[in-house]
Amino acid sequence: MPFESMNDAQLGVLSLLLEVSANPKPGNVDREHEFSDLKFEHFILSAISAYPAFEDCMNRRGSIGTNFFNAVVRSYEICRTNVHFGAFFLLIPLIWCGGKVDDVEDELKKTTHEDSLAILSAFRICKPRVMKVKELDLRGEKVKEEILEKKVNLYHWLEKSPKENVVARELVERYWRSLEGCTILRNRYEQCGNLNEAIVYTYIYLLSKHLDPLVIAKHGLDTAYYVKERAEEFLDEFSLEGVRKFDEELVKRGINPGSIADLTCSSIYLALKEGLI
Amino acid sequence: MPFESMNDAQLGVLSLLLEVSANPKPGNVDREHEFSDLKFEHFILSAISAYPAFEDCMNRRGSIGTNFFNAVVRSYEICRTNVHFGAFFLLIPLIWCGGKVDDVEDELKKTTHEDSLAILSAFRICKPRVMKVKELDLRGEKVKEEILEKKVNLYHWLEKSPKENVVARELVERYWRSLEGCTILRNRYEQCGNLNEAIVYTYIYLLSKHLDPLVIAKHGLDTAYYVKERAEEFLDEFSLEGVRKFDEELVKRGINPGSIADLTCSSIYLALKEGLI
Repeated sequence: MPFESMNDAQLGVLSLLLEVSANPKPGNVDREHEFSDLKFEHFILSAISAYPAFEDCMNRRGSIGTNFFNAVVRSYEICRTNVHFGAFFLLIPLIWCGGKVDDVEDELKKTTHEDSLAILSAFRICKPRVMKVKELDLRGEKVKEEILEKKVNLYHWLEKSPKENVVARELVERYWRSLEGCTILRNRYEQCGNLNEAIVYTYIYLLSKHLDPLVIAKHGLDTAYYVKERAEEFLDEFSLEGVRKFDEELVKRGINPGSIADLTCSSIYLALKEGLI
Repeated sequence: MPFESMNDAQLGVLSLLLEVSANPKPGNVDREHEFSDLKFEHFILSAISAYPAFEDCMNRRGSIGTNFFNAVVRSYEICRTNVHFGAFFLLIPLIWCGGKVDDVEDELKKTTHEDSLAILSAFRICKPRVMKVKELDLRGEKVKEEILEKKVNLYHWLEKSPKENVVARELVERYWRSLEGCTILRNRYEQCGNLNEAIVYTYIYLLSKHLDPLVIAKHGLDTAYYVKERAEEFLDEFSLEGVRKFDEELVKRGINPGSIADLTCSSIYLALKEGLI
């Protein structure tokens, strides 16, 4: 090859773009469907705006916390809404570690309470929907004082995240969900030769394996289980037409499994790192 | 603003992504329509692959010719088909000049025959469809010898391009078509507040003003005039629904005005430089 392949920051942006472009993606923004306050273009603007923060991660400039903060705030300044909070949360440590999931835990242990405060600041700026938790709730009034007082670094904080928070858990569980998604994606792409179809399949697969914490937060546990079971059905007899019907159903009910979309991003990133394209 | 806005390389990539995402875009690849050998994902991959070449332009590394070559070849290595030859041709000199259209002519005059050879090499690798011309035809057998012998730099070469080649002419005519597109885009966006609609409107506007050289090359002058006149009609009574009908018609007839899509990219880039978003 006369040229180096894409760098890690490019792959990060690419994974975000491939995810939002994958179509149909039940309940979430895709090529055929967007919300009045969250449009397809927002995802494009937000993905491109993240490049400098991804580049800083790639070059180990700043820290995981500051780079996450920069990515979130730059995106928010342009889009004026939360677009990629969960996806950045998964991708920033991954890019920091050059895609080596086994290194993430050590790097998180090296963070300080300053990183935790950066996450909190980012949260307070773009206010994404998150699950309520018992300890160190992002929305809690005294969480800042507690982080400062106990010098809570990112690892300690994330360790306390509940098992339903599949995004936060990934960081302290070596991204096993994303690695599974990566394998599914690579196999399906090899089999069907169609990148769009392979990503949609991966999304449905992840949806059939994990409850979405955003769906739990907005609609309750029963609905989250229902979505998971429906995804299993559509996975068994997979077709883009079938998935389109599932999409219509979720859109009608206002159910958008955003965290599964985030996991799809990190799955795509890992697959790109392994040479998907 | 606590953060700098996007850099010129990001804006270049963004303009490519916003163009392909604009929907519906009669005859060209958009969110709802792709070709069996040229898919939506190709445009995303190609756009992201161009970042390093755009960055080199932004930092005045290399030359216009080598950066164009790098952008084309990186895209081709990933997509294995021509995706952005015309768009890169417009954007590379623009980014090299930081969006200052008045500087492009001087910079082209500073190029050497080496830049021309780089363009020729890029052409021979990805083989885009181009119009036949009398002098220095890209497909000519002896064009390389002629460039070498007469030391033809980019400016001299482009000066000879026929008036129908709206992409090549832009570079030696201070991007007046793109500047007009930029004004239309900014006004429309201010008026309707919808970025997608504003870009579609700009595309239809450019289609109504210029004959597309790719349509001329593939379908002849009569068809090119027909497309231009139809675009005028759809512009007069503009609606996305109307444009969708126009799209169906062009898709059915296999007419894809790719050069007008290229001009849409450079129009978007200039509008982004002027602070569109």
